[in-house]
Amino acid sequence: MEVISDSDFSIYNIPFGIAEIGGEKLIVTRLGDKVIVLDMLQDAGVFAELDLPYGIFVADFLNDMIGLGKPITTSIRSAIQKYFTDEAYAQQFGLDAGQYLIDYQLVKMAMPIRVGDYTDFYSSREHATNVGIMFRGPDNALMPNWLHLPVGYHGRSSSIVVSGTDFKRPAGQMLDKDTGKPFYGKSHELDIEVEMAFIVGRNTHLGETIDVNEAEDFIFGMVLFNDWSARDIQRWEYVPLGPFLGKNFASTISPWVVTMDALEPFRTAGPVQDPEVLNYLATRGSKSFDIPISATLTTKEGVETVICETNYKFLYWNPSQQLAHHTVNGCNVNIGDLMASGTISGSDPSSYGSMLELAWKGTKPIQLADGSERTFLIDGDSITLRAKAVSGEVVVGFGEAKGTVLP
Amino acid sequence: MEVISDSDFSIYNIPFGIAEIGGEKLIVTRLGDKVIVLDMLQDAGVFAELDLPYGIFVADFLNDMIGLGKPITTSIRSAIQKYFTDEAYAQQFGLDAGQYLIDYQLVKMAMPIRVGDYTDFYSSREHATNVGIMFRGPDNALMPNWLHLPVGYHGRSSSIVVSGTDFKRPAGQMLDKDTGKPFYGKSHELDIEVEMAFIVGRNTHLGETIDVNEAEDFIFGMVLFNDWSARDIQRWEYVPLGPFLGKNFASTISPWVVTMDALEPFRTAGPVQDPEVLNYLATRGSKSFDIPISATLTTKEGVETVICETNYKFLYWNPSQQLAHHTVNGCNVNIGDLMASGTISGSDPSSYGSMLELAWKGTKPIQLADGSERTFLIDGDSITLRAKAVSGEVVVGFGEAKGTVLP
Repeated sequence: MEVISDSDFSIYNIPFGIAEIGGEKLIVTRLGDKVIVLDMLQDAGVFAELDLPYGIFVADFLNDMIGLGKPITTSIRSAIQKYFTDEAYAQQFGLDAGQYLIDYQLVKMAMPIRVGDYTDFYSSREHATNVGIMFRGPDNALMPNWLHLPVGYHGRSSSIVVSGTDFKRPAGQMLDKDTGKPFYGKSHELDIEVEMAFIVGRNTHLGETIDVNEAEDFIFGMVLFNDWSARDIQRWEYVPLGPFLGKNFASTISPWVVTMDALEPFRTAGPVQDPEVLNYLATRGSKSFDIPISATLTTKEGVETVICETNYKFLYWNPSQQLAHHTVNGCNVNIGDLMASGTISGSDPSSYGSMLELAWKGTKPIQLADGSERTFLIDGDSITLRAKAVSGEVVVGFGEAKGTVLP
Repeated sequence: MEVISDSDFSIYNIPFGIAEIGGEKLIVTRLGDKVIVLDMLQDAGVFAELDLPYGIFVADFLNDMIGLGKPITTSIRSAIQKYFTDEAYAQQFGLDAGQYLIDYQLVKMAMPIRVGDYTDFYSSREHATNVGIMFRGPDNALMPNWLHLPVGYHGRSSSIVVSGTDFKRPAGQMLDKDTGKPFYGKSHELDIEVEMAFIVGRNTHLGETIDVNEAEDFIFGMVLFNDWSARDIQRWEYVPLGPFLGKNFASTISPWVVTMDALEPFRTAGPVQDPEVLNYLATRGSKSFDIPISATLTTKEGVETVICETNYKFLYWNPSQQLAHHTVNGCNVNIGDLMASGTISGSDPSSYGSMLELAWKGTKPIQLADGSERTFLIDGDSITLRAKAVSGEVVVGFGEAKGTVLP
């Protein structure tokens, strides 16, 4: 099989996910168009040197495998890479490819992680500024704290769903601008937020802090994240305690967790931080990643339009800073906690990560390929997030995080 | 044994908890000073008619037992009550009391619930008004949405701890009022929030809503809840997305989950709601509960002062409204989700549920029994929440939710 390619799932990637196969949930990886059942590789002895627990790859979620620790999970990935690139080496295991390789179209992917706590940051300066301008005017766009700490808040874990899970347009309480009275109804301002999220890979105890320059040791990998948002519900409810029902009806992640090992070639510095951050947030070296991300809107009729092209590296606050800040007060984190970046907007309007910004509060409707326009999502619309990092021949992609709005 | 008494744990209570006994976690109940091991009652046949799964009471958390459903858990409680009040009936099981009754002082209680998602509401009008006056002045004390919906936000599940778990004073980023610059340091405004929380007892699917007048079917029981808060950290971080590190370093719950069945005799109406609420929040009948609650501050030297006496019934929004609102947008809930009331303040200053209010932003220090004063907690201080509902001979208490601030 061709293992070096421009597929999201080249030999340089080797992500982890959970597949439902024959009524059972199994840990799998992917190479090109093929899903690979790791339990079969283990049975054949491919991981013999790692002394893994028996049956570790037969699991509803990745959490226990992640719990083996980074030295082990990194070695699992390396062993898979060796198996698929060294034919002579692979032959000794006597595996029949038909047994452990399955066409990806035949496999239903499930939630990869049992999410304990979910936190959403707000780490894009451009996004925070855009929203600030729209709601408070240009003079008070950024809140006074924003440049000093990675603002974040707790979100709802239960409604995080895997790509392909459609959801109903949420209803709730909103304010009628004309009468000045609240009413109950379906949201008419259903939006997306283009984000990525990292998965915590190591537990801490209550009272412990994570050093900002060791924080990556506590991060297992990343996924795409669409933080669907009902702006009309959010606007009415969010003062003073933050977003709640405007967000917690659904959030969509991609099924493949791309490891931090796989992202290593795309390491880059984030934006210069001025004013200087406090010591506990001061990172050394390049702690961000160059990962181009796109959002595609597909109409009910199947017409696709790329409505956003952005990049993870635009984020002002990097994941190490997010995690160090999250634990500076002794808050404990657990394997499987999911920490999302916040909407990722760049400086160019085509890189804005929400429809609120793309259509600038409805004043510049988004033009679709079929000639129609959108300010927010209509029933039947699907949104697909994709991300693919490329550096020379090294390609690492995230697959898709897709969801459709049902009436 | 005396089963009708003024103990928190009279025969009318029969709460559920998790005890660590001999290295094992077991589901227990309590009667007076005795902890009762339910697995032994099951082995003897006390629950034979209920056809319970074998070993259901050997569990790290109550979640699976709760998952049996209310008709079953209600019957478990009734069977225990019958066993302990009908001596002739009890004799048939031939149990030796020494086997299943353990002095409570010999038992270490553990977290009763594996908390999935934790939500904190803000349902006391007096608390929201007090905080509003202190931070925004009397004219804008209540936000425009407050009387129309039970404002709430997502909190951190991982740092919810059981009574008796001490915690370190949190550090973090705050604003120096004099220089106008942020700095890192230990919180100097460590506060309490006197709350109660309900435990969700039944799952819903994404997209489902819970009818406000059926919401109690989805609530298993209640616990005491102290939402420790670092006001200086909170003040600097919370705009615009709500409280985060100012809260998530620790929250303390009581170990005994008091069932809604046990609270039935204390049912009462909440405050009149004016303006009228929207249809989806309109409850019929009495949906609140008359539960007096107190907070006691104990100094390092052991001097105790009751600093707050409040009541659950003061809450403007009742638990049925909280849960209906939480799901009106299709947000799914799971068994073990914990939903806290928000600080419970009454109209009398002695009933204010936070030190911020009790000491009115530091202007009226709290007087302790040893002659010392507090505006916020100092190292070594303990706070113990207690609650006990009484109606004639029927007494139902919650035990304690206690925590100590370590340096």
